[in-house]
Amino acid sequence: MNKRILVSMLPLLLIALVLLGLPADEGMYPISELMKLDLRSKGLEIAPEEIYASDRPSLIYAIVSVGATGSFVSPEGLFVTNHHVAFGAVQAASTKEQDYLTNGFLARTKAGEIQAKGMTARITESFRDVSKEVLGAVHPDMSLADRTKSIERKIKEIVAETEKENQGKRAEVSEMFIGRTYVLFIYTYLKDIRLVYVPPRAIGEFGGEFDNWMWPRHTGDFSFLRAYAAPDGSPADYSPRNVPFKPKRFLKIDPRGIAEGDFVFLLGYPGRTYRHYTASYMAYEEESRMPYAADWYAWQIDLMEKAGAADSGIALKLASRIKGLANTMKNYRGKLKGMKKLGIVERKRAEERALQAFIEADPKLAPRYADVLTGIDEVYGETLARAGRETILESLRSSVNMFHLAWLAYEASIELRKPDLEREPAYMNRNWAQTIQRLSFILRNYHEPVDKAVFKELLLRSLRLKGPDRVEAIDDLFKTDASEAAVDAFIAKAYGGSKLNTEQALADLLKRTPMEIKALNDPFVSLAVALFPAYQGLRETQKARKGALDTLFARLVEIKELYLGKAFIPDANNTLRLTYGRIKGYEPADAVHFEPFTTLTGVLEKTTGEPPFNTPPGIAELSKSRDFGQFEHPVLKDVPVCMLYDADTTGGNSGSPVLNARGELIGVNFDRTYEATINDYAWSEDYSRSIAVDIRYVLWVAQEFGGADFLLEEMGIR
Amino acid sequence: MNKRILVSMLPLLLIALVLLGLPADEGMYPISELMKLDLRSKGLEIAPEEIYASDRPSLIYAIVSVGATGSFVSPEGLFVTNHHVAFGAVQAASTKEQDYLTNGFLARTKAGEIQAKGMTARITESFRDVSKEVLGAVHPDMSLADRTKSIERKIKEIVAETEKENQGKRAEVSEMFIGRTYVLFIYTYLKDIRLVYVPPRAIGEFGGEFDNWMWPRHTGDFSFLRAYAAPDGSPADYSPRNVPFKPKRFLKIDPRGIAEGDFVFLLGYPGRTYRHYTASYMAYEEESRMPYAADWYAWQIDLMEKAGAADSGIALKLASRIKGLANTMKNYRGKLKGMKKLGIVERKRAEERALQAFIEADPKLAPRYADVLTGIDEVYGETLARAGRETILESLRSSVNMFHLAWLAYEASIELRKPDLEREPAYMNRNWAQTIQRLSFILRNYHEPVDKAVFKELLLRSLRLKGPDRVEAIDDLFKTDASEAAVDAFIAKAYGGSKLNTEQALADLLKRTPMEIKALNDPFVSLAVALFPAYQGLRETQKARKGALDTLFARLVEIKELYLGKAFIPDANNTLRLTYGRIKGYEPADAVHFEPFTTLTGVLEKTTGEPPFNTPPGIAELSKSRDFGQFEHPVLKDVPVCMLYDADTTGGNSGSPVLNARGELIGVNFDRTYEATINDYAWSEDYSRSIAVDIRYVLWVAQEFGGADFLLEEMGIR
Repeated sequence: MNKRILVSMLPLLLIALVLLGLPADEGMYPISELMKLDLRSKGLEIAPEEIYASDRPSLIYAIVSVGATGSFVSPEGLFVTNHHVAFGAVQAASTKEQDYLTNGFLARTKAGEIQAKGMTARITESFRDVSKEVLGAVHPDMSLADRTKSIERKIKEIVAETEKENQGKRAEVSEMFIGRTYVLFIYTYLKDIRLVYVPPRAIGEFGGEFDNWMWPRHTGDFSFLRAYAAPDGSPADYSPRNVPFKPKRFLKIDPRGIAEGDFVFLLGYPGRTYRHYTASYMAYEEESRMPYAADWYAWQIDLMEKAGAADSGIALKLASRIKGLANTMKNYRGKLKGMKKLGIVERKRAEERALQAFIEADPKLAPRYADVLTGIDEVYGETLARAGRETILESLRSSVNMFHLAWLAYEASIELRKPDLEREPAYMNRNWAQTIQRLSFILRNYHEPVDKAVFKELLLRSLRLKGPDRVEAIDDLFKTDASEAAVDAFIAKAYGGSKLNTEQALADLLKRTPMEIKALNDPFVSLAVALFPAYQGLRETQKARKGALDTLFARLVEIKELYLGKAFIPDANNTLRLTYGRIKGYEPADAVHFEPFTTLTGVLEKTTGEPPFNTPPGIAELSKSRDFGQFEHPVLKDVPVCMLYDADTTGGNSGSPVLNARGELIGVNFDRTYEATINDYAWSEDYSRSIAVDIRYVLWVAQEFGGADFLLEEMGIR
Repeated sequence: MNKRILVSMLPLLLIALVLLGLPADEGMYPISELMKLDLRSKGLEIAPEEIYASDRPSLIYAIVSVGATGSFVSPEGLFVTNHHVAFGAVQAASTKEQDYLTNGFLARTKAGEIQAKGMTARITESFRDVSKEVLGAVHPDMSLADRTKSIERKIKEIVAETEKENQGKRAEVSEMFIGRTYVLFIYTYLKDIRLVYVPPRAIGEFGGEFDNWMWPRHTGDFSFLRAYAAPDGSPADYSPRNVPFKPKRFLKIDPRGIAEGDFVFLLGYPGRTYRHYTASYMAYEEESRMPYAADWYAWQIDLMEKAGAADSGIALKLASRIKGLANTMKNYRGKLKGMKKLGIVERKRAEERALQAFIEADPKLAPRYADVLTGIDEVYGETLARAGRETILESLRSSVNMFHLAWLAYEASIELRKPDLEREPAYMNRNWAQTIQRLSFILRNYHEPVDKAVFKELLLRSLRLKGPDRVEAIDDLFKTDASEAAVDAFIAKAYGGSKLNTEQALADLLKRTPMEIKALNDPFVSLAVALFPAYQGLRETQKARKGALDTLFARLVEIKELYLGKAFIPDANNTLRLTYGRIKGYEPADAVHFEPFTTLTGVLEKTTGEPPFNTPPGIAELSKSRDFGQFEHPVLKDVPVCMLYDADTTGGNSGSPVLNARGELIGVNFDRTYEATINDYAWSEDYSRSIAVDIRYVLWVAQEFGGADFLLEEMGIR
């Protein structure tokens, strides 16, 4: 072929590539909004009613919330989610002798499936706007804190009533737009979940923290679990008599996978985004909260890594805390980089200046809206001003285990004696079991030297606070001597004198009245009692801030809709959402292009033999023949391992099914790229890419490496 | 446009891209071989005779060897090379008050051009095969060491004779194929070089050690210098009366630059490659020499960085040593990674097994060739076996400055008293000035605490050697006490008692006879005298090994040519070579594609304000208008900064002109990618990419930022 002709075709080709890569729209759409989207024009090949219609077994009934997300893939309650989502349950099921985390797990029969402790699965059954009822509970004369309390109380009442009317279901009222719209969701709530197939950690967590939030990625981050129900089909606690749950709908899998440029959509439960927030909030995050938290997490990780360096038992205990801290730290650092690179705060400020000018130019609008932005700025200004004190109070309670236990036990002794609807959510009957579970997780991973070092650091930081930020109860402890030696002495005495750190002691404590607890004279309980007014003050402050923001943000969305002449979709809030996009690479830096698929060859190239790059030798063995059958990518001539797309996701979308234009499963979402950590604040066409494990790798590993042919058969794959 | 039609065009496009990216051949071709290459069919649009013909002013006369490479770009002796090539001269010309390294340098008139101390420029004038004469000096009965000495002696004679016949020229005999072919080169040797335009270090060294050996790259690694000659046009030492040198040929510049897929070629002086070496040599490098050296360099860098941490004066002194060590360390680590990734040793072994089988299958070949590979293996086996001892001896002399000075002075006192042709090369009249220059460079950067620490480490390592590796003269020092304390005491005494470390002391020393030097009783000289027999033994061993390898490698190339039915090109050896290829990106890892051009936007994205990412603010200012005139890349709509191509280069090609199909300058080569550090052992179509600064960035910086419009005019650019 003549080279000049070929060269002359290049511009045409460029147009073709642009057209194939049509930009996706930003958005995590609530299911209620689907019909307003013209998804067929974006590339969907099935009727949108196939995704959701209340009168038929549409795709949303195949989606489960498991903290993150999962999706049913067989009529027998089999569902797929991420390895990292099932991680805790696999760890809990493992012993030194039967280490399923390291070796993986496969149940060859249903009888062999073992309980996934701590896991539950929710299915969204229906939803209804309850904004009127909720907002009917407030009136203008209320204090800001009381406004928040009234809304909380009304929501609790709606939930209680709904759960009474719908026995066995779980209800939640979710705030969609701050202070403006509230939706009641009713969920089927499955509590008997079992492990079916889990690949070895060296596949499911390949690349570890090193590759976390990164592309190119080579992680087989998937696991298969099964939901069980009572013999009559109703949700039930774990029992050997239970039977596989029959979902209204399960996903068909397309083992042929997907290609670059193809349309995809995801269903799932994204956690939180902040896109409707203001420049002042973003600036608070960028300048104060995130850098402080990232540094504080780095400090703790360093401490824990040193503590675990010489003793693998201690290292194991601290591993999941380090993993969690490192995950958030890297996420924050990615966000900080992205905020700077995209100039998010400056962009928001420019938008807000234009909006303010629009408001002030119209005498009809000004009275209702002119103070909205300044009002919000004031709240975040105050939050920023008190961040020194509030951060110390929050960190003491969240990072010092002994103090956390004492504080929670003391608050429980007060709260549990109130009527259920008047309690803080953690102490309500419907949540209490989860609260207890969290406590025993803390006890299981408790390590005194680390706890002491964290406590000391926070006390020293507290003693360095200035003026109004100072914490009186801590000052009182060191009135006569605030030296490091005095802090050391206090800590030695406190840990020497406390006996809270056993399951037995804790269980005993949680039965007592406030007076009985105080009488114990446990050093940590005494500190909790002394600090209690400070925490109560903080809670009141936070509720007042929420009350102020509720009215301000409600008006902000109103005026933004008026100004821009369009309706918005609410920020993510742990409710079921749809997002769509295309399989697509990106340019993370000048002269660098990331392709949207990684391969099995790439897994082997990264493999060093040392964790987290210790691929099981069986994988290299199996890949030798290069005979991948139906799981081969037709262009790459290899098994595709992970893939990229520009759909809009955030934490909570872990395990979300990635579906093709026909609504068939072709991947399991598990992460975003480093540049896309910024998604929580702004979606960027250039940088927002999410990462899934390709269904072809899932199936190839399960069948060829795991020997789980029968599961592929159950999923209808031959 | 219909999307389906576009999709159907994709395969066509793929074919187009493949055709555009025709693979280049491996090779650094000697000028003598050019006519055998069908360069027109590869993409060259001018007659090959334009590149080299002895009877016309062809392109090679525009190329200068300046240690690395440069090329004339005006009839007035103006030449362009890399910033890093001119670095030492710029540093030497700088003072605290006039810091040309930091601020850059521009001479607005020829009178303002300042001497580039230490720089010379060689132009290849002619060459002639002298293999017969050289090999005529040996006969079969000679010992292996004598064989080497005879060849060295014969070469010195040829050089002396040639330089006598060609007054003012410099002659070199270069070994092309080991022990087989020798070529006499005659060079014009220019000694008056001056600085013309040097960008600030923040442009010329942007990215520093961090980006070194890496892509994507954003370094403006170029400088303009000018060669001067005596008023009659003949080479002369620096003199204010000298006039600009008139080269026979200078390069035309194409300011429009080049595009992806285009043919390019380079002329230059690549240093050393080892492609004709055997698996046993590669294994010695991979298993012993390179990992040891990389670790030893890392140890020294760490030491020097700590020494410089608290004192910027010391840091400045150590900067160029650290830079040199870090450069080699990173190069070796890249090579080690590449050798493993490409399986070089295993590949070579397989080739050698096949070659051996071919030899043994033919009774006519076996007698002459059957022992060749095993013979070479034996030499490298012995080298590997003695590496412990030999590395310590080499390191003592190269890394301990005080010992280096003492040792060299002592050897000089012996060598300088021999007839010129009998001396080791460093002491011959024609090289002595350079030797002295190297010594004063060492003195200038001398820092006693670092020297002591390095000396101590090497003594301790020496004392840990086993059996035959032990160094007697060092053992003798610590006969009664070989503890660390004894080493410390010895070092304290040695540095306390020596006075070698001034220019004056050294100059004085270099005048003395061996007896006089011994009589000084300087501790370092005494050690040099004591160790002298060990070094003489090492030199004899190395000459004997060279003698053995000469006969073995000569036969190896013979039989390989017979076996493969083709002639080879010799490994790089600091002589003028041509290499060609195409502008082309590559895939450094699964799912990652590197594009072949970086941009000014990328420079600004990398800029943090902190060295080595501290782009001068003027660059950002100038880029604001986005009006780049003729220096804009037509597709990227930006100034292209650096570019990638698959030509075959190595160290020494720094500063090589990158020429388009018409022989016009479009870039200045300055580095290779990390994956291409492996070039010294094997060229890889997938990974071997070299890096140039795009001529458009050179010209844009010089004109817009540097204000050197008149230079562009001198170069014929309007």
